[in-house]
Amino acid sequence: MPDSMSMFRLMGLPDFQEGDDLAQNIIDTFISQKQTLVAGDILVIAHKVVSKSEGACAYLDQVTPSEEAIELAKTVNKDPRKVEVILSQSSRIVRAMKRPDQDEGVLIAEHKHGYICANAAVDESNADHPGQLILLPEDPDKSARELCLVLEKHFGCELGVIISDTFGRPWRLGQTNVAIGLANVPGVMHMLGEEDAFGRPLSVTAPAFADELAAASGLLMEKSAKSPVIVFRGLDWPKTNSSSKDLMRAHNEDLFR
Amino acid sequence: MPDSMSMFRLMGLPDFQEGDDLAQNIIDTFISQKQTLVAGDILVIAHKVVSKSEGACAYLDQVTPSEEAIELAKTVNKDPRKVEVILSQSSRIVRAMKRPDQDEGVLIAEHKHGYICANAAVDESNADHPGQLILLPEDPDKSARELCLVLEKHFGCELGVIISDTFGRPWRLGQTNVAIGLANVPGVMHMLGEEDAFGRPLSVTAPAFADELAAASGLLMEKSAKSPVIVFRGLDWPKTNSSSKDLMRAHNEDLFR
Repeated sequence: MPDSMSMFRLMGLPDFQEGDDLAQNIIDTFISQKQTLVAGDILVIAHKVVSKSEGACAYLDQVTPSEEAIELAKTVNKDPRKVEVILSQSSRIVRAMKRPDQDEGVLIAEHKHGYICANAAVDESNADHPGQLILLPEDPDKSARELCLVLEKHFGCELGVIISDTFGRPWRLGQTNVAIGLANVPGVMHMLGEEDAFGRPLSVTAPAFADELAAASGLLMEKSAKSPVIVFRGLDWPKTNSSSKDLMRAHNEDLFR
Repeated sequence: MPDSMSMFRLMGLPDFQEGDDLAQNIIDTFISQKQTLVAGDILVIAHKVVSKSEGACAYLDQVTPSEEAIELAKTVNKDPRKVEVILSQSSRIVRAMKRPDQDEGVLIAEHKHGYICANAAVDESNADHPGQLILLPEDPDKSARELCLVLEKHFGCELGVIISDTFGRPWRLGQTNVAIGLANVPGVMHMLGEEDAFGRPLSVTAPAFADELAAASGLLMEKSAKSPVIVFRGLDWPKTNSSSKDLMRAHNEDLFR
C-alpha cells in the first residue's frame, strides 16, 4: 500500500450524443490537455457520458404508461410515463414513498442489473432536454472493459476503469458515487488470512475498493461542472477479472430487501 | 472546485493507550516525519486511536450479561458478554442474523449516537489483547473539534477533522469508512439552487462530502498497517459548524429502519 496518491479531473470533454465515440473523445481530450495516463492509473467515469454515447436514454413523449405505472404514479406523484420507464428498468419495487413535504416521491427499486437504488437510476439531471431520461448502460461491465481496452492500447499500459453512478443510502443523508461497472479494478479487497496490527485475523474486513474510489471521485466530480472523468494515480492494486456483481450482496445474505 | 487533490498517510504513529495525548502525538509525528499541515487540509482519523486514547473500551472479564443479552446471544452465537456490551451501546437492535455458514452472526444495531451499524460498532480487531472491545468515542464530534483546535493552534491554519469508522452497507458487499465525528468539514454539500450543466435545477443532489472523504481514506488506511491518520490536501471547502448528525437521516424519512 502506497503512502500517498493523487486524483485529477480531465477537463475539456465535450457533451455526448448517441453514437459518439467516448473512448476516442477521452483520448483526444487527454492529448489536447497535454496529459497522459500511466500504468496503474484508474479512471472513474460517470455513467451519464457512457449512457448518452451508447444511447441508453428514454423519451417521455414515446412512452405509454401501463395500468400498473398509472397506479404506482399516483402514490408518489410522478409522471406515469416516468414510472413506466422506471418499471422497465426494474426487477422489483422495494419501497415507494412520498413524504407530505415532497412534491414528488421516490421509488426504491431493484434495477434489473441488481443494484438497489432510487428510481431504478432513471435520471433527468444532465439530460439534454426536458423529456429525456438517462438510463444505466445496457451492460456497464462490458462498457467499462471496452473503454479500458481502447485506453490501454492507446496509452500502452495497464489501466483500470470504473463506471459510477450517484446513489443515496439508507440511514445516511447525502449521496455518494458507487461502482456500477468494473474493468480490471477489484470490487472488494478480500483480506481473509491477513492480520490486524496486533496479529488478530481480519476475517471480516473486506474494503469495498471500487466503491472507495467511486466515492472519492465525487470530491472532484461536480454535476454542474461537466467533469465526468476522474483519474486516480499512485495506488497499488491487483489487476483482477472483476465485475460489478462482486459488490452485490446475495439475496439470502441481505437483511434489508 | 479544484482540478486535482492529493492524499497521504501519516506514518510512524505509536500505539495508543487510555490517557495518551492523541493530538500531541499527531503533532510530534508530523514533526518527526518532517511533514506539516497547511490551510484547508482535512485529516480523516480512524476512531480506534481516538477511542483507545479516551479509554472508550470494554473488557469482557468485567461484564455480567443480562437475561436479554443471554437470549439474544443464542440467536447469533455470540459471547453473551459481548452482546451485553453491544446492548449497552445501542438504542435498538434493528436486525439479528446468523447464516448457517457463519460461526458467529451479526446484530445490526442503532447506536445510541444514531448510526446504524453492525454490532453497534463494538470491535475486537486492533484491540490490544483478547477480551478488550473497542467502542465508539463518547462524543465523536466533540473529540473531532478538540483535536482540530489543538492542531489548528499548532500549525497556525484552518483545518478540518473527520473521525471515521468502517461500516458495512445494505445490498452491497465490502465495507467503506464513514464519518462519525466532524470538525469544520461539512457533512453534506447542499446544492439546492445550483443547476446542472444544462441549466436544470439540482434540487435533490447533495453530495455526502464527509463520507466521500472517509471512504477515500480507506484507499490508504489499511487496518493492518497502523496508519490511522490520512491527510487530504487541495480541496476547496466551506468551513462549517458541522456535526455528524448532519449525515443522519431522520427516522420519519427513513425507509429501512
